[in-house]
Amino acid sequence: MTNVPEAAQIPLAMLIVFGSAKILAELFEAIGQPGIVGEILAGVLVGPSLLNWVQPNELLRSLAELGVMFLLFRVGLEVKASDLTRVGGTALLVAAAGVAVPLAMGWYILRVWGAPHMEALFVGAAMVATSVGITAQVLTAKGLLWHRASQIIIAAAVIDDVLGLLVLAIVSSLAKGSLDYLQLAITGFVAVGFVLLVIRYGTAAMGKIVPKVEATLHAGEVQFNFALLILFALSVVAVFSGVAAIIGAFLAGMALAETVNRRVHDLASGVSELLVPFFLAGIGLQIDLAALADRSTLILMLVILTAAVASKLIGCGLGAYGLGKADMIRIGLGMVPRGEVGMVVAQLGLSMGVIAKPIYSVVVCMALFTTIVAPPLLKLSYRGVKPQGASEGFQLG
Amino acid sequence: MTNVPEAAQIPLAMLIVFGSAKILAELFEAIGQPGIVGEILAGVLVGPSLLNWVQPNELLRSLAELGVMFLLFRVGLEVKASDLTRVGGTALLVAAAGVAVPLAMGWYILRVWGAPHMEALFVGAAMVATSVGITAQVLTAKGLLWHRASQIIIAAAVIDDVLGLLVLAIVSSLAKGSLDYLQLAITGFVAVGFVLLVIRYGTAAMGKIVPKVEATLHAGEVQFNFALLILFALSVVAVFSGVAAIIGAFLAGMALAETVNRRVHDLASGVSELLVPFFLAGIGLQIDLAALADRSTLILMLVILTAAVASKLIGCGLGAYGLGKADMIRIGLGMVPRGEVGMVVAQLGLSMGVIAKPIYSVVVCMALFTTIVAPPLLKLSYRGVKPQGASEGFQLG
Repeated sequence: MTNVPEAAQIPLAMLIVFGSAKILAELFEAIGQPGIVGEILAGVLVGPSLLNWVQPNELLRSLAELGVMFLLFRVGLEVKASDLTRVGGTALLVAAAGVAVPLAMGWYILRVWGAPHMEALFVGAAMVATSVGITAQVLTAKGLLWHRASQIIIAAAVIDDVLGLLVLAIVSSLAKGSLDYLQLAITGFVAVGFVLLVIRYGTAAMGKIVPKVEATLHAGEVQFNFALLILFALSVVAVFSGVAAIIGAFLAGMALAETVNRRVHDLASGVSELLVPFFLAGIGLQIDLAALADRSTLILMLVILTAAVASKLIGCGLGAYGLGKADMIRIGLGMVPRGEVGMVVAQLGLSMGVIAKPIYSVVVCMALFTTIVAPPLLKLSYRGVKPQGASEGFQLG
Repeated sequence: MTNVPEAAQIPLAMLIVFGSAKILAELFEAIGQPGIVGEILAGVLVGPSLLNWVQPNELLRSLAELGVMFLLFRVGLEVKASDLTRVGGTALLVAAAGVAVPLAMGWYILRVWGAPHMEALFVGAAMVATSVGITAQVLTAKGLLWHRASQIIIAAAVIDDVLGLLVLAIVSSLAKGSLDYLQLAITGFVAVGFVLLVIRYGTAAMGKIVPKVEATLHAGEVQFNFALLILFALSVVAVFSGVAAIIGAFLAGMALAETVNRRVHDLASGVSELLVPFFLAGIGLQIDLAALADRSTLILMLVILTAAVASKLIGCGLGAYGLGKADMIRIGLGMVPRGEVGMVVAQLGLSMGVIAKPIYSVVVCMALFTTIVAPPLLKLSYRGVKPQGASEGFQLG
């Protein structure tokens, strides 16, 4: 893109990333695969690994971050807080088992492979955090958010984010040599408190505030603009409370779900239609196929990838014991995709000197490849379930 | 923003810029002023000039650029190519006179002020190009795009962009000491050719292609995604043809205006509702009040600002002679806002060493202040005209 006039750079980057994502989505849908996998692979295709038409840059990273925020916001708009609390008990079990099993499995594999204790612990920790964006997009696109298994997945993913935060805090304290229990307790308390507060009081608060805002203000799309402010505000508060911005975005959507009108859904859809492909292709842009050229690294990656899938399937599936085999599999698969959090853990380990560079590449590739492996399996597991409750534009195929 | 965790920076910047823009828009609407002025001033308020809560950065600049692209795209969606060609003759006169008068006036004022010939010429050139975004937003927000005067403004602004390009090419050649007539002819021919081609064949082409695309493809919001691809593609081609990306965005919207369904309008509205405030506040962010601290600079700025308003009002108004006083004033005022192009000319002059730094600041401030002065006057000039043809969300107050 060096010979391109500056004024053309933004539209050209948009054209390449958005265009390739949509074309590959179409091709994948045509062969019965989830379009989302095509959109991720579009990033691999146009990125540095293959064609090198675009490089990850500030703009694309920002659009990706906004994309996943709006994705979770839109998912929140489809979920009632009461549905989430109803499945809360099961979700807690799912999330807890879904943290313990991957952590143990990752640690064990690395120990067998001959890695030192601390490195093994970091790899285990990096295998913990589910990236809810991918699953949310599949469930939204297929109109499956109404399903009990889907709601358990969403609730468990929120809890998983808090647990992942605590695991990260613990392993990084351990690597530094000491464990500050008070600090850990405060971290956990603030994060849990923020999430519970919004779930418990958010819907009622918005139910009171939104009609007042609408009656008082007049400039343009009042409801939508107010919803965006809540989205940005809760994303900021979420980060300061220790959870991910996207959890705040999700909670904002959920708090507004029962109050805002259809038009807010439509306008939010417009934004996420534009931005979500940048989130998906952005994952692909980060995949560095060259890192897997070494044979023993490749083998370790395949083992870790298999373990990453199996451990969530087993852990989360068992957490949902009693719901029947079909839902156990759906929930297990729904929690498989890892994402940015796993990479953050790996990066921290690398910067602290407890993870070696090849192991770091393995973890990053594992996180990315789970996002490609999970959607087709998830789609398969929901086969025969009727789509429902999705807006006009939500259904992909 | 240095003490803010990295994960919170994007949502926090969004919250501050979007939030302040919407709050000031509401306040301005409440006192009977156009909300758009509030949104621009929000940028001044939170930017480096006053509170310094946010600084112009890559993200905000990109969002602003995307914002004005989507703004013009949405305006294009409301305009038929046939309407545009119907007013083409008048628009050509308006644009031509609207280029000649400011150029002459700017040159003359600087000569009287004692500036060298070439500097005077650059200031004149910087006063030429109308920034259609501001006027388009006012007309769209007030539901006035259907009006004859509005359509002449839009058409004239497109022609103005091509003429502005030629003026820029001429003055920068002159500053280098020679005028390459062949090169100028080619530049003009390509730019005019691109615009005319899309106006003439765009609508028919889209009328054929869109139904086929819709019949063939299935992944998600096919029409909207296709519209976005056309938007990005024409923006890129526009830049390579020598006109601004936003002209391509406008032409893309216009080509699609008669084909796409209501849902594409709604989804595009969602995107522009989110992004346009970044364009508007972004203008304010660039205003450097400190540059006006010097008294003689301030006086020159006021003279140039007055001339900038008067010259477009006179030039464009006379170009529309025969339409009656009311429409002449509307058209003249609609062409008053200057923007990025004027700043680009000034920057070029500065980098070539023909414009002094204080004169550069004067020109930049002139360009920015016209965007604040024009909307209230424009709103006044359309008083009594009934809003029409705007979608649910288009009317501001």
